[in-house]
Amino acid sequence: MLTPYAVIDMDYLEKNIGTMADITSRLEINLRPHFKTHKSPLIAQKQIAAGAIGITCATLGEAEIAVNNGLKDILISREIVGTGKLSLLAGLARHADLKVVVDDPYQVTQLSAALAESPVKLGVLIEINIGQNRCGIDPGNLTAIIDLIKLINQHPKLTFLGFQGYEGHLVLHPNEDERTTQVEEANANLMNVVKAVAEAGYPAKIVTGGGTGTTLITGKIEGMTEIQPGTYATMDATYSKIMGLFFAPALKIVTTIISKPSAERLIVDAGSKAISTDYGPPEIIGHSDWVYQCIGDEYGILRHVNGQPIAGNIGDEISLYPAHGCTTINLYDKIHGFRNGILEIVMPIGRGKSF
Amino acid sequence: MLTPYAVIDMDYLEKNIGTMADITSRLEINLRPHFKTHKSPLIAQKQIAAGAIGITCATLGEAEIAVNNGLKDILISREIVGTGKLSLLAGLARHADLKVVVDDPYQVTQLSAALAESPVKLGVLIEINIGQNRCGIDPGNLTAIIDLIKLINQHPKLTFLGFQGYEGHLVLHPNEDERTTQVEEANANLMNVVKAVAEAGYPAKIVTGGGTGTTLITGKIEGMTEIQPGTYATMDATYSKIMGLFFAPALKIVTTIISKPSAERLIVDAGSKAISTDYGPPEIIGHSDWVYQCIGDEYGILRHVNGQPIAGNIGDEISLYPAHGCTTINLYDKIHGFRNGILEIVMPIGRGKSF
Repeated sequence: MLTPYAVIDMDYLEKNIGTMADITSRLEINLRPHFKTHKSPLIAQKQIAAGAIGITCATLGEAEIAVNNGLKDILISREIVGTGKLSLLAGLARHADLKVVVDDPYQVTQLSAALAESPVKLGVLIEINIGQNRCGIDPGNLTAIIDLIKLINQHPKLTFLGFQGYEGHLVLHPNEDERTTQVEEANANLMNVVKAVAEAGYPAKIVTGGGTGTTLITGKIEGMTEIQPGTYATMDATYSKIMGLFFAPALKIVTTIISKPSAERLIVDAGSKAISTDYGPPEIIGHSDWVYQCIGDEYGILRHVNGQPIAGNIGDEISLYPAHGCTTINLYDKIHGFRNGILEIVMPIGRGKSF
Repeated sequence: MLTPYAVIDMDYLEKNIGTMADITSRLEINLRPHFKTHKSPLIAQKQIAAGAIGITCATLGEAEIAVNNGLKDILISREIVGTGKLSLLAGLARHADLKVVVDDPYQVTQLSAALAESPVKLGVLIEINIGQNRCGIDPGNLTAIIDLIKLINQHPKLTFLGFQGYEGHLVLHPNEDERTTQVEEANANLMNVVKAVAEAGYPAKIVTGGGTGTTLITGKIEGMTEIQPGTYATMDATYSKIMGLFFAPALKIVTTIISKPSAERLIVDAGSKAISTDYGPPEIIGHSDWVYQCIGDEYGILRHVNGQPIAGNIGDEISLYPAHGCTTINLYDKIHGFRNGILEIVMPIGRGKSF
């Protein structure tokens, strides 16, 4: 094995998948795990086998991988725009039960045009902005929401299914009480929309949202029909701080000490092209008193937290626990699945599919 | 074309390659461009055709791609450690003129062992730390340096070739005068080593270092035999601030506005998996009064710099000029080469080769 490489502990992975299936079963909410974290068809199939109703994809490219690997119930959680993408979306819809979100009449009109010659229908959800301030219609703008439902229903190839609302600004809130209160408030806005729209004659079949950090909150909210957690399967150092009691650290990056130019500094062969630091530096597994600093695309420095001499040697392998699993996995074409320290399977990762 | 995708303007690329060839020719210094920025065999071949003596690779994986694509004179600028990598290195050395850096006796002993059964010899350079404080022997530690040369020369399969010193901490220094002074001081330490070691009977054939931002400084230093700039070919927004007079912005990422949830906010389909922000946000081409904010792996927000309403529409394509080309290109499997707005070639990128 040539470092740096990515490893998933298969026992931990399967335990995490089982734990989330148990949690959602007890909460009596459907589980639609996000494909974006792992981009692995095998892991998605394990999630389905454990009880997930389908998957969520962040991009059309991910959905294409999923369809090519036999996945059938797929929500694309991003607005799809542009004739090239819409043509591909219409084609993929012939091979799986696809659903997509919209937040503007333009997207609906374009979707309808792309599906004009298609024998299949496409499920459409309306995205509601519940505080992340990314995509989504303001929940107070009921007129726009109802007008959009009417527009969807005017198009014979489109079926209005319900709503998506994602509290992405809250999923990593470090304080559990505040996280709970704020997530409940955010989703109350979503539920006001669901209720008002139902009273206007448009009941929602699907109300979807949530992430790993809000599973236990959003999963309990009356009216949510499904949640979309992603990171729980592989986990990372950031989510472990709030969900480490429930999910085990399955993902790590293995690196090698390639140089020890001073007593206080170890250089490893994992830099920004091997481990992401957009959520902060990785933790160094087995060395809680060491810190990692990225120093280039291909290099990291390990130091003792107090600047004391550090005890590693050139040639030693060191494992890093990424702060952000999604962006770290995305740097690799494959991940090595180990069980009890023995290589079990090399899993291709469908990275490079940002479209 | 499905956004987000990466584009290189072929006219700009070729102009940059020609400009650097001219500069190094006038400075009478050899050019060994870094492969790590573009990871494209075609671009490397263009650099060789314009006069480069060979290439620099940041990883063994890059060198493998280069060897597979017929490149012959390759310096691996990172210490190679571990039996798996050393076995591959010894094998690759049968197919090209490879050179590698070391900074510790352990690496030399391991290199020698890996080459024991090989019919070919490997060129070895000693890395000197000239202030980046990453890898490299302290230039004041002449005893260790000469001992290491002696050790290299003891091994029949290794040939001592000279030194590498990289002023990575200075290549982006914004003030030209300070950059010049500090780069000269840093490289003076390298030249003291070169001189002292030559007087001890070990003349260096190669003294290599430098980057795009120090080409005009390091390239002039008496005693340097070659420089290793990488970014100049494709360029990025960060290097443009100091080298934009010489090199044109060849690289861009094309993205689509997928949502306009408010008058002040446009959402594009390029997030952290499509454009890196480790050197800061990208510039928005043609809209100098707009700013980009990454809001997730697959989303960016565009806003007017003053928070005013912003004039874009859903479906519009927007081009971004990355702050860091190396880590942005690394997110893609291929780059689209356009000339005068017409697609000319799709260039595969050897990403995912961090080992």
